[in-house]
Amino acid sequence: MTLSVAVSGASGYAGGEILRLLASHPDVQIRTVTAHSSAGQPLVAHQPHLRSLAHLVLQPTTPEVLAGHDVVFLALPHGQSAQYTDALGSTPLVIDAGADHRLTSAEDWAAFYGGPHPDPWAYGVPELPVAGGKQRENLRGATRIAAPGCNASTVALSLAPGVAAGVIVASDIVSVLAVGPSGAGKSAKTNLLASEILGSANPYAVGGTHRHIPEIRQALIAAGAPSDGIRLSFTPVLVPMSRGILATSSAPIREGATDAEIRSAWETAYADEPFVELLPEGVFPRTADVLGANVASMGIAIDRAANRVTIVAAVDNLVKGTAGAAVQSMNLASGLVETTALPLNGVAP
Amino acid sequence: MTLSVAVSGASGYAGGEILRLLASHPDVQIRTVTAHSSAGQPLVAHQPHLRSLAHLVLQPTTPEVLAGHDVVFLALPHGQSAQYTDALGSTPLVIDAGADHRLTSAEDWAAFYGGPHPDPWAYGVPELPVAGGKQRENLRGATRIAAPGCNASTVALSLAPGVAAGVIVASDIVSVLAVGPSGAGKSAKTNLLASEILGSANPYAVGGTHRHIPEIRQALIAAGAPSDGIRLSFTPVLVPMSRGILATSSAPIREGATDAEIRSAWETAYADEPFVELLPEGVFPRTADVLGANVASMGIAIDRAANRVTIVAAVDNLVKGTAGAAVQSMNLASGLVETTALPLNGVAP
Amino acid sequence: MTLSVAVSGASGYAGGEILRLLASHPDVQIRTVTAHSSAGQPLVAHQPHLRSLAHLVLQPTTPEVLAGHDVVFLALPHGQSAQYTDALGSTPLVIDAGADHRLTSAEDWAAFYGGPHPDPWAYGVPELPVAGGKQRENLRGATRIAAPGCNASTVALSLAPGVAAGVIVASDIVSVLAVGPSGAGKSAKTNLLASEILGSANPYAVGGTHRHIPEIRQALIAAGAPSDGIRLSFTPVLVPMSRGILATSSAPIREGATDAEIRSAWETAYADEPFVELLPEGVFPRTADVLGANVASMGIAIDRAANRVTIVAAVDNLVKGTAGAAVQSMNLASGLVETTALPLNGVAP
Amino acid sequence: MTLSVAVSGASGYAGGEILRLLASHPDVQIRTVTAHSSAGQPLVAHQPHLRSLAHLVLQPTTPEVLAGHDVVFLALPHGQSAQYTDALGSTPLVIDAGADHRLTSAEDWAAFYGGPHPDPWAYGVPELPVAGGKQRENLRGATRIAAPGCNASTVALSLAPGVAAGVIVASDIVSVLAVGPSGAGKSAKTNLLASEILGSANPYAVGGTHRHIPEIRQALIAAGAPSDGIRLSFTPVLVPMSRGILATSSAPIREGATDAEIRSAWETAYADEPFVELLPEGVFPRTADVLGANVASMGIAIDRAANRVTIVAAVDNLVKGTAGAAVQSMNLASGLVETTALPLNGVAP
Repeated sequence: MTLSVAVSGASGYAGGEILRLLASHPDVQIRTVTAHSSAGQPLVAHQPHLRSLAHLVLQPTTPEVLAGHDVVFLALPHGQSAQYTDALGSTPLVIDAGADHRLTSAEDWAAFYGGPHPDPWAYGVPELPVAGGKQRENLRGATRIAAPGCNASTVALSLAPGVAAGVIVASDIVSVLAVGPSGAGKSAKTNLLASEILGSANPYAVGGTHRHIPEIRQALIAAGAPSDGIRLSFTPVLVPMSRGILATSSAPIREGATDAEIRSAWETAYADEPFVELLPEGVFPRTADVLGANVASMGIAIDRAANRVTIVAAVDNLVKGTAGAAVQSMNLASGLVETTALPLNGVAP
Repeated sequence: MTLSVAVSGASGYAGGEILRLLASHPDVQIRTVTAHSSAGQPLVAHQPHLRSLAHLVLQPTTPEVLAGHDVVFLALPHGQSAQYTDALGSTPLVIDAGADHRLTSAEDWAAFYGGPHPDPWAYGVPELPVAGGKQRENLRGATRIAAPGCNASTVALSLAPGVAAGVIVASDIVSVLAVGPSGAGKSAKTNLLASEILGSANPYAVGGTHRHIPEIRQALIAAGAPSDGIRLSFTPVLVPMSRGILATSSAPIREGATDAEIRSAWETAYADEPFVELLPEGVFPRTADVLGANVASMGIAIDRAANRVTIVAAVDNLVKGTAGAAVQSMNLASGLVETTALPLNGVAP
Repeated sequence: MTLSVAVSGASGYAGGEILRLLASHPDVQIRTVTAHSSAGQPLVAHQPHLRSLAHLVLQPTTPEVLAGHDVVFLALPHGQSAQYTDALGSTPLVIDAGADHRLTSAEDWAAFYGGPHPDPWAYGVPELPVAGGKQRENLRGATRIAAPGCNASTVALSLAPGVAAGVIVASDIVSVLAVGPSGAGKSAKTNLLASEILGSANPYAVGGTHRHIPEIRQALIAAGAPSDGIRLSFTPVLVPMSRGILATSSAPIREGATDAEIRSAWETAYADEPFVELLPEGVFPRTADVLGANVASMGIAIDRAANRVTIVAAVDNLVKGTAGAAVQSMNLASGLVETTALPLNGVAP
Repeated sequence: MTLSVAVSGASGYAGGEILRLLASHPDVQIRTVTAHSSAGQPLVAHQPHLRSLAHLVLQPTTPEVLAGHDVVFLALPHGQSAQYTDALGSTPLVIDAGADHRLTSAEDWAAFYGGPHPDPWAYGVPELPVAGGKQRENLRGATRIAAPGCNASTVALSLAPGVAAGVIVASDIVSVLAVGPSGAGKSAKTNLLASEILGSANPYAVGGTHRHIPEIRQALIAAGAPSDGIRLSFTPVLVPMSRGILATSSAPIREGATDAEIRSAWETAYADEPFVELLPEGVFPRTADVLGANVASMGIAIDRAANRVTIVAAVDNLVKGTAGAAVQSMNLASGLVETTALPLNGVAP
């Protein structure tokens, strides 16, 4: 079986990374790539690293151009997906890398995004513990999939095992993330200029305003946390690396939980997951070690003096955080081998 | 009055920064610079940016060479100060940039450093709220001063006002820091190589092992926290910028504390402090904006959804974090104008 | 004497750096700062590192606002100066950090800029050897000064002594520059995004199209090169550091020139120049060592195997390359001590 | 056919990259990895990004351990290969990533390395034009191969087509390279510390002392340049990116050569080479676009005003510059498909 695929937003970072992964996918034919203002230009004019796709020309992002494929990836700015999803009614599989279809709560949508609340789709983090299993099961055979927010999936994967096993308390979670600017996309904004980012650590969305907060909360509720018992302090900090998320998350230890029970929560959850790496005790991940890989790598410290479990997780925001999650979801939804075309090894140093 | 000064460890980063500041100090004559393996070489062979000191030659770091000055700065690796401090008995003022004389608790010393516990000296963070005033008063006329740990002073300055005012709860503090590698000194270690740091965020000392933890606890106790009621989760993350600390600290809001009371705690504490900058509501600092400046810049967010106050503070680890603190302490101890030779403006972008 | 000063383009990088230097200038009162779209906002909203100027509010950049000062600095995008210079007829001293008034050759202007050729002003690189002396003499008492292009002054200072002394051949110069993106200004362009610059070396203006080429040629002619005998291959490469230019320039050795004659050319030219540092034989500069300093630091290698003299020069593009040159020119033009408010020491690491 | 492979120096950067490529090679079994001081530790303790090789344990680098494989890769510091190559007499294929066996000229060896001159091996840059063909032919069936120096192969590939076609003059070549520090290996040296490299451009080996100079000269002679007619000014500059070489090389245009002839020299040389990318006129490569790829990407400018052809080439020093070249050579020597396991696409941004 060869799936015909269209990728919109192909001149951007998320679109480019989806294409990088699909370029080595044996069951996929990349038939169409689309963009907005760059339509008509060769793909490699915008993605010069994708040499094996040098034959592709960017077409305009219209429902007509996107129709007629087995799979359509939408890698568009927030709020732009809806106009296409309606028109893609007959497309077997649509995967949205944007935020539009991630949230189930209309209240959260109103508070963090505003405007009409699009219908929620299956959430594309296969390894995420949910009641009675993994999110993976919801993706098998799915036809509409919302790829995760990169920060959200990193934090959710960090905490969900402990929440599901009841060894940490979800009511006082603190997450601080060092993130690279590619997560903000290829948009010409002054605050994303190299001169502003080089040599500096720049916080943003401090104090509970980041849009990934409700997404994390939703994932933790799915993992078993009481919906009224989650409190999350979430602070992202831009640091001078193009890719990568290093999320340091901690939560209070549930009274009475032993070290063995705590460690076992994560070990059990990720024992058979090729793309979630639980490091040995005392070892913690660096973002360099997941660069280019579809892997969330994490280490866990039980800090009895602080009465907290601290999870440090590294993710390549463009791979496991976005494009890899999208391709992994496609594999699951289409009945392909889940790990196809998804790199386990990173590129370091 | 002109003070004659000796700086040991002058070939390293802390020593170099002390010299950079002293070079423009009108009341100081830099008479002696010392080093270990580089003795005999010109200072500028190791600090080529210090052109105005091109006449200085590194001498060996011995008690004899250091003796006979009005002020001696020790910028040596941990554990090496003691041998000199004994021999400098007649030196009017000794300022140690190392950790040896910071901790008052023998228990903490044993747990985090080990070996004989050196006597504690006056702690060199002038703006730090302590019971009934500021640490500054302890520095006036002091003869032996321990300059602070850069991470410790950043976090202590972030939290102490809230602790002192009783608007936050010290028993569940979480601090995550993005830090540049210069804080680790100019020592040739594989994990500090550029190839390891560039493009990567690297956590270290995860889970409560960092030596600045007891120093922060000590500062918060001095600010009024109950000594048995401080719990601190502390995680530093190396990021690819040579200088800078961006500390994101949070603590639970004391029940009943109003937004006005919370904000007022910091406003009151730092209203008259030129070197602690409290940013307007909704504004948070970047490390680029304190580069080269003797300033701790901070912003405060009251996150009611998370029930936490989040303080984001930016410090140049080599200036306000180390050398600037040392020079400011010297000014205070020597009866000079406290702000002399201490830059308020940073170098950006 | 206190000069009243206005700085236009105060929200940008060049304007900000002029202000950083002027902030510590004892003979200057910064009375007016102007901007375009940010008029009405506090200066520190755009230049948060300039704490000592927190009282200033950005005013609109109009001839009326700029009029009535002793000195006006224009730090505007190319082509925007002319409209103000006409209106500033009665201003004693105008210094343009833009390109408009640098070129004397109408032909060069037409070829590299196009449009009407503004009248050339005195060129603001005081140390530049010109026939019979230094460019400095043209700046004393000048009323209209064109601050240099940062790349141009770096390369011109590198080569002019050898050209003036006749020890190198100007007809086959090759310059390759590693440059930081701040030289391109604070404009939101996709190719200047941090994600594009981090981890990458990006050439631009390859093959003889860079606008600083005629400016270098002009400087070398002023230094004594035959106007029809200069050929210059010039390639700038953006590298991931916010500031800095490292220019590697080479030219063939004039037949018969001895090593002593060659070295002497640079030694003689810069012997008494505080802001041009000629490093000892075998030592070459790093951009870190001039960060924040008004210094061009250079080392010279005589490569007999290649038959070329190679000059490696480091400059902070925003200081000696732009703002420092502008302030140094102001000092000269106004009869102040030339070195006032110009840092000799850099900020490293 | 499955080749059994041993990789020495497996804890270093070159060794790690050879393993990253071999990990996806279908015709290879990585049986042995060796190191010096780290022997006995898991490979992933030193190469945490190589998850698919988590089962491998580092063994000591001894002739006994290395013996008995079909292919042995030596990724050792300079001068350490010889002791093993003698003992590997019966090994079918040995590929040395070090410098020991690259130079044919005993005189060059004495001048740039010193000590006994090891015998030269086949040189591992398949695409390099040599008299009557490509270096590739020398690698087919070879049993001893010297992988290239990363800077050398980048510059040689840039210039050889023009030299071979006689459109440029080899007697006045100038190359300036922006290089990442990983090329210097994972050795703990002060000048390679992140604090020294971040935010700075640092030249080294200025003035004709770099050891890759004779290697480039040798390659250009093989391409047809007269052996007494090559002069090369070569200056590498360390810049803050972990990987990558951006080489800007230029040479005088041969009198009478037309633009078409010049461009055709490179087009002809690389028309059928998948791993050398000649960009369209006016387009030049960035190192980000070859990160992780086995590709030398180059653009050519004909600068008539400077009378030079300028070639800008981007290479990932660890891939096409070292490990990729080594694996490509192995493929050729072993009769495998030349392109196996060698990425065409890069990882960007």
